Parts: sequence; C-alpha cells; structure tokens
Amino acid sequence: MQVYMDNNATTMVDPAVVEAMLPFFSEQYGNPNSLHKFGTASHPAIARAIDQVYAAINASDDDDIVFTSCATESNNWVLKAVWVDKILHGEKNHIITTEVEHPSVLSTCKFLEEQGVNVTYLPVNEQGVVDAQMLRSFITEKTALVSVMWANNETGMIFPIKEIGEICKEKGVLFHTDGVQAVGKIPVDVQALHVDFMSMSAHKFHGPKGIGALYIKGGQALSPLLNGGEHMGGRRSGTLNVPYIVGMGKALEMATENIEAKMATIRAKRDRLEDALLKLIPDTFTVGERDHRTPNTILISIRGVEGEGMLWDLNNAAIGASTGSACASEDLEANTVMLAIGADHELAHTGIRLSLSRYTTDEEVDYVIDHFKSAVERLRSISSSYAKVKPTPGGEATECAVH
Amino acid sequence: MQVYMDNNATTMVDPAVVEAMLPFFSEQYGNPNSLHKFGTASHPAIARAIDQVYAAINASDDDDIVFTSCATESNNWVLKAVWVDKILHGEKNHIITTEVEHPSVLSTCKFLEEQGVNVTYLPVNEQGVVDAQMLRSFITEKTALVSVMWANNETGMIFPIKEIGEICKEKGVLFHTDGVQAVGKIPVDVQALHVDFMSMSAHKFHGPKGIGALYIKGGQALSPLLNGGEHMGGRRSGTLNVPYIVGMGKALEMATENIEAKMATIRAKRDRLEDALLKLIPDTFTVGERDHRTPNTILISIRGVEGEGMLWDLNNAAIGASTGSACASEDLEANTVMLAIGADHELAHTGIRLSLSRYTTDEEVDYVIDHFKSAVERLRSISSSYAKVKPTPGGEATECAVH
Repeated sequence: MQVYMDNNATTMVDPAVVEAMLPFFSEQYGNPNSLHKFGTASHPAIARAIDQVYAAINASDDDDIVFTSCATESNNWVLKAVWVDKILHGEKNHIITTEVEHPSVLSTCKFLEEQGVNVTYLPVNEQGVVDAQMLRSFITEKTALVSVMWANNETGMIFPIKEIGEICKEKGVLFHTDGVQAVGKIPVDVQALHVDFMSMSAHKFHGPKGIGALYIKGGQALSPLLNGGEHMGGRRSGTLNVPYIVGMGKALEMATENIEAKMATIRAKRDRLEDALLKLIPDTFTVGERDHRTPNTILISIRGVEGEGMLWDLNNAAIGASTGSACASEDLEANTVMLAIGADHELAHTGIRLSLSRYTTDEEVDYVIDHFKSAVERLRSISSSYAKVKPTPGGEATECAVH
Repeated sequence: MQVYMDNNATTMVDPAVVEAMLPFFSEQYGNPNSLHKFGTASHPAIARAIDQVYAAINASDDDDIVFTSCATESNNWVLKAVWVDKILHGEKNHIITTEVEHPSVLSTCKFLEEQGVNVTYLPVNEQGVVDAQMLRSFITEKTALVSVMWANNETGMIFPIKEIGEICKEKGVLFHTDGVQAVGKIPVDVQALHVDFMSMSAHKFHGPKGIGALYIKGGQALSPLLNGGEHMGGRRSGTLNVPYIVGMGKALEMATENIEAKMATIRAKRDRLEDALLKLIPDTFTVGERDHRTPNTILISIRGVEGEGMLWDLNNAAIGASTGSACASEDLEANTVMLAIGADHELAHTGIRLSLSRYTTDEEVDYVIDHFKSAVERLRSISSSYAKVKPTPGGEATECAVH
C-alpha cells in the first residue's frame, strides 16, 4: 500500500479532468486568438471553463477572472501591480501582510522592500490566525494594500477574511487574499464578503499544475504582470493554455459540487486520524482548533522527533507527508508557522503535516495510524532529546496551540 | 479535407509528446519539491527534459535554462528585470529593440517607457530585417539592453543575430533575443554566437501551449519576475508544471533531431507552394528573400484583396491561415511588418501568412494552391479596389519586398 497524505502540497489530477483536457492537445489545437475555425473550435470549451470558475466562487458578471500560470504568478501580479499603480505612480507606500503567508507573498514583499516599500508583517496569535482588529490598527493613509491568506497551507487555519474585508472597505484600502488553500476545500463566495483580489491554483483541487487564476472584483484596474498580445482583455498576455483552462474549470466544478458533503466526509476521516494519533502517541500536539481549520489538514507535533526523521520513516512506509509547505521543504528550517504561534525552536522542528483529499480511504487512514505510531516509537527510542524531556510521562496529548 | 497552415501561431501537440506527458497527471503527480517518493518520482523525467533542452540549443553547463509559462513571460521577465536591475538600481536608462518585435516585447517596452525608460525602436530594411551596423550606432553609455528577435513571426525573416551579438559583446551591453520562431525550426547553437538571454516557446514546435523557457548565459544575475518558493534555483518560483516540462523537452528533442533534413523537406513544400501561387495568381508578392526565411513561412500579398476577406474564404475551404501574428489577429489592423518594410497602407492589408509544419503533406499543398487561387479570383471579381489597379495586366508576380 502507498498513501499520499500531502494534498496541501499538490493533488492527483482527477482522471475526468485529464479526459476533459485531452482533445485540446492534438485535435482542437488551434490558437484561440486565430480567426479561423481551428482557432475558434475551442471557444465553447473555454467559455464553459470560465463559467465553471465564476460559478464555483459565485463571482458576479462585473467581476473578472483571469487565468494565470499559477498562484505564485497571481500573488506576484497583485503585489507588483499595486506597487506600480499606487506606489510608483501614487501617494501610497505601505503594504500589510502576515508572517505566515506563502513564500510567493513573503518573497515578493521582500522584493518590494528593496524597492523602498514599507511592509508590515503581522504576527499570528496562538491559534495561528491574524487578529483583524490588530490589523486595523496598522492601516494608515499610506497603506495601499492588505494581503492576507484565506487559509494557511501548513495548519489549515481559516483566517477572518470577512472581518478583514470589511475593515479594508471601510478604510478604502485594497484587499487581496491568497485563496489557494480555501478554494475547492471550503465554501468560497466572493459576493458574501469584500475582497478585491483572490488568487487560486488548480493543482490544489485535483486540476493540473501550471495554471491558476486571479479574481478581480468589479473589473477594477490592475497593471498587467505580463504585457503583450492583449489576451484576456489585455489583463494577462500569453497564448491561452486551452487544455489546462478546460481542466481547471472541470476540476473546480467537481471540487465544489456538493462541497458540504465532501467536506463532511473528509473531515470525518481527518478527525478519526487525528483522534487516533493523539490518543495512541503520548506527547503529541496538533495545531489550531479543528473547527477553524480546512477539513483535510492536521499539523501534528511530536515531542522529541525531528520532522525530517519522521518524514524519512513515513516515506519508507510509502506514506507521503510534509514538514511544512512543499515550496520550502528543501530547506531544513524550523516550521515558520509553529514559530509564529509561539512554539519553541525545538518543537518547531517536530511538525508533520498530514493533508487528506476526497480520494483518501478509510484503509489509508488505518495504515497511516499504524505506521505513524511505529515510526514515532522507533525514532523516540533512538532520540537523545526525547529521553531528556521524557520526565513528562502521562503527558496528555492535546489539540491546542503549541507554545 | 482540412488544412492547418498557421503553424507560426501554434502547432498541434505531437501525439508522442502527449504520451510522454500523460503519466505525470494522475500517476506520478507528486510535487517535485516534496521530499517523499511521490515528489521525487518525477525527478528523472524532469532532469531528462532539462538535458533535452540544453542539447537542442547546445547550451553549456554554465548556462541556465529556466522553464516559464510562455515566451510572453520570458520576454516580460528579461525586460522588466533589466529595468529593475540596471535602471532602477543602476546608471542605465536605455533599451534598444525593433519595430517588428512580438507584442510581448513591444507592449512591455511601452510599459517601461511609462516608467521613464528611454526605448529606441529600430526600423527594418526592405527585406524586413534590422541592420546590425545601424543598431550599433544607437548604443550609448546609457544602453542597458538590446532585444532583437531571432526570426520574425510574420515574415519568417532571420535577423543577423550573430552580428548583433558581437556588437553587444564589444559594447558591453546585454543582448536578449526572442527565439520563439527560430528554436525548433532552424539550427540554434547558443555557443556559436553571443546571446545573454533567449526566449523559447514549446507550442511553436509541437509541444503544449502554456510552457516556455528562458536561456541565461553563464548563470548571470537577473531578478526574478515570479518571486516565491525558490523553485528552479530561485530564478522562477511556482510549482513545477511537470507534464509540460516533460512535454517541452520531448517536443524540442523531436523538432531538432536531424533538423537539416526536416528543414529541407518543409522548405521543398513551402517553395513549391510559393512558386505555384506566384505563378498562377498575377499581382502577388511575397515578402523577404526565401533563403533568409525560416523554411516554413510565406507572407504573400495579393493586390486588391483584403486579408480578412481572404481568410474568410480560406476558412470556408477549411484552410487555417493568418493575416499576421495570432496575438494581434483580433484587431483588424494593417500588417505592421509590411508597413515597416515600406508597403503602402492598402497593400499592408493584403498580407496572408501561410506557415507549414513537418506534418504538412503534398496533398495539403495541392489543396491550398487550388483553393487559394479560386478565393483570389472570387474576391477580385467583387473588388472595387482591384478593378482600379487592374491597369497593370501581365503585372509580374514577384518574390521581393513590397514597398
């Protein structure tokens, strides 16, 4: 048996999505910008995909949804365009974000700081979320943009996006949310709250890697990141990636169809897995209240066990898991979210993220419980650091913030 | 019968390329940045694709080849990074390009002009190419970058890249070439000349739409356009699009294998088509000397026949052709290259581009000759402008620059 439990890093492309994409490689291969029938043949499929994405997030006809090559592009686009539009060519000079954003936001903010932009990185509280009222206190007349993720990739914690959106609207500040870990996992209704820009990524909901989108409220102005042949109404140039556009629409439609029922099924498996690990393995902690997380995510900390060692043992048992976001997983650094929520440095090296999908089976959950437990036992038996902290026998396993 | 003769706009994905990509959607779907075996499973295939691209353009081990989402991204990247690195954070303030570049270069240059950058747009001569010695005369101490395409998308004309590269090297100016219409069509050896950056696009050589690359000589510095999770050595962040990377490597290997023989075959068909059209239809002109074009391209002007009307008739005969680059084909503007080479405005509306591929058959060539001729006859019979110019009966059909 092999078990993939790293669905926050990426997901399997649904075979129905592959099937939907296939005709657009070698059959309907024309450039959609061409005037002849080879070019226009794919127009109905593209239109359908656009409709599917609009419907999935309940966008209005006044809004724009622009396909990009990934959420990293969407995030770079918003931040760099706001820099050009509001800072280089305006009176603003301040961006607010959080310490726990995806690297594509954090690294772009570092780039903007090198260009003279003032960036505030808000800390998260013990639950791993940003406090909306604290955020309000940092907004000044110079603030051009607030960028806060909808759900965290490492903990699954859902941020108070509705409250933050209201504050931004009240203050007249643009609001961007990285919706990558929310869209396709929890209900997302862009008309039920105030958000100017939202990034999405298909490969997080069983679509292909290499396509994302940016939602833009009310068709408002935003300088392009990719200038050129005026594709997508001039918002993002580059020949349309027809197969992936079709695939993203199909994947998002499938992910959001009966999403409440899908969530309940995944949550039940996640909760059973989490309960079992906390019960069977002493001195373990999970991060963030379960009800405030995306239903597929567990970030579990195992005192005395290095995350990388644990990954190795799980990998030997053919289980795919993660110590943090895959985008940072080649660096053996302490988990930044755990540090942010107040974990000590030793504990911040012990986090293992398990992220399920709608394909996760009960047998896979059982398999992970067994092998996770044996791996912890083996690693603790050879751990010098666990021996030292062992004096807390009977230490209750808890579901709470580590700090 | 239906005949696709718009291969400079985009190409059919080779079925062998689709086959090579397929395992990476639903089988080996891990994120290559993940440490577990789901993630590392695709590493050999990615490494092979990188090797295929290096080999195809004869890059050296010191050079970098970075996958992007398209050549539009590659072109935007180079121009905007040079702006940040050498102009915002340096003493330079000048970029040289040509009037006939792809919109992704021209439009990005317009954006840079809005940021205060001084851009020189060089005209092309009667053959539709830029004169290297004229280019030399425009280089100043303030020049940061020269960006000149390798081959033109509309005419197929090959630019004097070797000579321009030598001038840039001598003057200490960075040199970028948009190689989109050259790579996979003619031999490209980046070690045989001096080029700092070269853009490529897979969908021009029977790979998928939505992936391109940037060649970077000697691993030199260039600020990222997409900041983030430090993928591809920090040069371009965003989860790797594994299927398309594999597909681009495979497609480029196939396109460049025995490229001289492939060129000869395509050229023979192109020349037969061109000879027949020029011979059978009076008052027609093709642009640029045949031996200086990519072997698959014809830009033919038919006096008295609007390009759009011609496209319509060809489309009714199930022939896909173009009046210019697909990226601009939704605007009914005069062909900019034809204007640039000195065509009058009326004639610049009459250009039809036919671009063949290695899949073009002799039967398809015959079919296009027949239907092209009938379309011209029909359209001229109802054309008021052709009646007016008709006083040049027996007007020789010519292969030369129109002006």
